[in-house]
Amino acid sequence: MIAVVCLNPALDVTHHVTAVDWAGVNRPAQVHTRPGGKGLNVARTLAAIGARVLVLGLAGGVTGDGVSTALGEMGVPATFTPVSGETRRTFTVVDQRCGTSALFSEPGPVVRPGEFAAFTTTYRAALAGCAAVVLSGSLPPGVPRDAYATLTRLAAAAAVPAVLDSHGEALRLGAAAGPAIVKPNLAELEAIAGRPLATPDGADRRAVALAARELRAAGPRAVVVTLGAEGLHADTDEGSWRAVPPGTVTGNATGAGDSVAAGLAHGLALGRPWQERLRHAVALGTAAAAAPVAGEFSHADYTRALPEVTVHPDAVHSGEVG
Amino acid sequence: MIAVVCLNPALDVTHHVTAVDWAGVNRPAQVHTRPGGKGLNVARTLAAIGARVLVLGLAGGVTGDGVSTALGEMGVPATFTPVSGETRRTFTVVDQRCGTSALFSEPGPVVRPGEFAAFTTTYRAALAGCAAVVLSGSLPPGVPRDAYATLTRLAAAAAVPAVLDSHGEALRLGAAAGPAIVKPNLAELEAIAGRPLATPDGADRRAVALAARELRAAGPRAVVVTLGAEGLHADTDEGSWRAVPPGTVTGNATGAGDSVAAGLAHGLALGRPWQERLRHAVALGTAAAAAPVAGEFSHADYTRALPEVTVHPDAVHSGEVG
Repeated sequence: MIAVVCLNPALDVTHHVTAVDWAGVNRPAQVHTRPGGKGLNVARTLAAIGARVLVLGLAGGVTGDGVSTALGEMGVPATFTPVSGETRRTFTVVDQRCGTSALFSEPGPVVRPGEFAAFTTTYRAALAGCAAVVLSGSLPPGVPRDAYATLTRLAAAAAVPAVLDSHGEALRLGAAAGPAIVKPNLAELEAIAGRPLATPDGADRRAVALAARELRAAGPRAVVVTLGAEGLHADTDEGSWRAVPPGTVTGNATGAGDSVAAGLAHGLALGRPWQERLRHAVALGTAAAAAPVAGEFSHADYTRALPEVTVHPDAVHSGEVG
Repeated sequence: MIAVVCLNPALDVTHHVTAVDWAGVNRPAQVHTRPGGKGLNVARTLAAIGARVLVLGLAGGVTGDGVSTALGEMGVPATFTPVSGETRRTFTVVDQRCGTSALFSEPGPVVRPGEFAAFTTTYRAALAGCAAVVLSGSLPPGVPRDAYATLTRLAAAAAVPAVLDSHGEALRLGAAAGPAIVKPNLAELEAIAGRPLATPDGADRRAVALAARELRAAGPRAVVVTLGAEGLHADTDEGSWRAVPPGTVTGNATGAGDSVAAGLAHGLALGRPWQERLRHAVALGTAAAAAPVAGEFSHADYTRALPEVTVHPDAVHSGEVG
């Protein structure tokens, strides 16, 4: 069982509009509603590759009911601790003529101290049966800033390794508690490092390797940085690797990052060696990037990408850093 | 008791954004959620002026639950017949920098024949205690196109006068069943008449009077046309009037039209003479136009406007039409 913590789930509403009038009345041609939030994308990916998964989170109001109901219809088990506030929505408008999208993301309900305490009780009880736990996404207002550190320590006390995928202070404080893996993207790593890590041509490999090593020194046993179409950089206590997807990857970066987190957690739970763990993570990310909706992918794309991913020791890093 | 029929209610979600990025990610500064749909605006206005009101409608899914819950919190009684589909949402994005708004309006769930039949049973039972009924807004997919005609005839059989506020075929077919009042706006009257009724300077008074007379000949006992800042034109079996608001009216036209319908229904239920009925309707519309949100208004604005509304026989109409 892999537990996926999603403290700030969302109901994602997408309107497809033929040609948007940004100052008038629009009648969407298509409306899609689905459970959202990074943790739910991770959980759906894990369920799709056959992992046993349990979503643990906070939900409230009729929007929270909507998230629960939709997850149930997708066959993704979830235990939500109730909150008095209303679960947030995200609203995406896709302009079919221009091909552009605008996303409007609500902040989420203010969580009361007793509500987060009730969540940790449920979380501790669920850890007993888990091979790994994923801590994913932003923290809603009211949840302690070091919530991911607390949840990482509780997991460690139950001998359950944690994968942390967040940003900013939630990532920094959580990383210090020593999770098995943290998975920042380039922008999140830059924010933690406090300096740019890219050139106009893409990620600066040496700078990324150095920043990942620094972040690992702060607590986590491994740091895996997602670099979009350039794949992954992994800095672990067993070595450093680059994992590169086949061909040219374009598409949905949000979904890709969540699928990489799912692949890493799955490999961790199965005890896969690092190189295989990274290969599966990149293949899942490649398949997810090709899908139009975050949290979804084609199994054919996944299995086609698997043998084409290249994983090699990170020469730049081995030679010039550390 | 005034029954207000709202077959296609909505959950209106408004995001206030400091400066919208129409091709990127936005974090709204404020999020407001409230029950919407024209009928619910009418009901809220009636409740606010002290009328006993009952909303009758169709609602489904967690969005329908959200509409019910929010109406309950506002103290507006409602009996919704359940539908298997999900009640619609509207999304409004207000760009606080530009002052512009974009509205995205979902079509509403497809209603099954048995669901509309169950609604009419509830409606007939509720009519027994009613002094008037308001039939307001669009028809959701699946509801018969002549639904407002059916509901008007059922009301007439129970000796309850009906106010019909809709557009297009729902208005045309409903008007033929002889409601007490139909309340089109200028665009809706133009669509029914099949010809323009305005000049570059505003409504063409003679053309509006003629089209209103033609519409009244098709069935309703009175036609009241809302003309925005120019007030109302009323063609009734007791005479024709113009009712003109004080000063310059600007603001929220949607809310104003719904408040006029509420004022007309209230006057009908109280048996107010036409001139007083129109005076109250215009004063309510003026107050609603000044409010930022449809269905809300300031009582001070309403009572201030009342003595300043001018109502006079329609000389153009009396002299040159009919």
